Amino acid sequence: MEARLHTDRRYEEELKALHHDILEMGGFVEKQIVNAIAALVHRDSERARETIARDHTANRMDVEIDELCIRLLALHQPAARDLRLITTGLKITTDLERIGDMAVNICERVLELNEEPQLKPFIDIPQMADIAQRMLRQSLDAFVHEDTELALKVCAEDDSIDSLNNQLFRELLSYMAENPNTVTRAARLLFVSKYLERIADHATNIAEMVVFMVKGTSIRHLDHLPEHV
Amino acid sequence: MEARLHTDRRYEEELKALHHDILEMGGFVEKQIVNAIAALVHRDSERARETIARDHTANRMDVEIDELCIRLLALHQPAARDLRLITTGLKITTDLERIGDMAVNICERVLELNEEPQLKPFIDIPQMADIAQRMLRQSLDAFVHEDTELALKVCAEDDSIDSLNNQLFRELLSYMAENPNTVTRAARLLFVSKYLERIADHATNIAEMVVFMVKGTSIRHLDHLPEHV
Repeated sequence: MEARLHTDRRYEEELKALHHDILEMGGFVEKQIVNAIAALVHRDSERARETIARDHTANRMDVEIDELCIRLLALHQPAARDLRLITTGLKITTDLERIGDMAVNICERVLELNEEPQLKPFIDIPQMADIAQRMLRQSLDAFVHEDTELALKVCAEDDSIDSLNNQLFRELLSYMAENPNTVTRAARLLFVSKYLERIADHATNIAEMVVFMVKGTSIRHLDHLPEHV
Repeated sequence: MEARLHTDRRYEEELKALHHDILEMGGFVEKQIVNAIAALVHRDSERARETIARDHTANRMDVEIDELCIRLLALHQPAARDLRLITTGLKITTDLERIGDMAVNICERVLELNEEPQLKPFIDIPQMADIAQRMLRQSLDAFVHEDTELALKVCAEDDSIDSLNNQLFRELLSYMAENPNTVTRAARLLFVSKYLERIADHATNIAEMVVFMVKGTSIRHLDHLPEHV
């Protein structure tokens, strides 16, 4: 009986550790985005290089959380809701790790952009980054608190990133068409904008998985989001 | 005893079904890539629209395979190697579903590109698509046969896609710089090239997970790939 209690307590602690580790990894990749955008706006190549060098931390966290999930599945054979929580955890780390990759990609473009004069003041890109970060934070909050309302709010916000991305696409293309000297820089900024759109996509994926985890039904790939689930 | 045998047989069948379903989903998204590139090369908007419309099949497969994995975990409480196989299955479906999304994105660019005359003959893009498809197929073969040598081969091939992508980037940028009328089309082709690079990235991710599944050690995020593991 005591051994059983001990196992249960240990299981509860490991589940808490899973929440904690995922939030920590989320916080880390969010900071990577902040650093990447700061490196862009302040033309700070040193900061870009440091951010790239730090990416291994996200990779380590990814591997460690996967290991924790597999250990939880192997030792405690969880059922129902806990099983969904742990399998969702396994999938979330992939999205977080890719978000970290996107921050690295932004930094790589920053290093290239800093070899030429600045093309234009940065207005849309920091705004996109703010929305993407908020979506990421809210999707992980929704995971930890099993909050489907918040998760659906994240999914709905993906449209505002897409529309900023489209607006920036048109603007950068008109730069290119008007002045051939801007082509390389504008193309690199096009990619930065795409990377931010993908970060928002990953946050949306996390939010969709949270709904699946809590409700056991998939809202992935519906044409219209339900207002409530 | 008979009940136990029955459960074991059922478990074996469901594991086989998991292999089968993942290969089927892989085959489906591979065909989506083939259709997307054919729609591009033959300027076939109808085919692009059909391919976009078929994407829901990948989404359904994704949800079904996830459900199968969760059922296997819940009912059979697998250990060790089987546990790694099933958790890898869960993660692979995410990559496959995103590959399907990339095929849709290519088709969306095709519909836009077909509103203007063709910019240039397609040489690099079909070649990139061939490599990406081969990588996808081999990564899934490596999964099913637990073949780490093949998985490492896939990882090594990612460089050839990257170098084709860089070459095409430079070529498209010189089009843009020389003739402002090409800017929009060249930008759309830049994205097509990026989507193919991402398909190759997803195949590489799958291959890396296969090594992890078989060996229990992560080669994800090493600077240099081991020749053997």
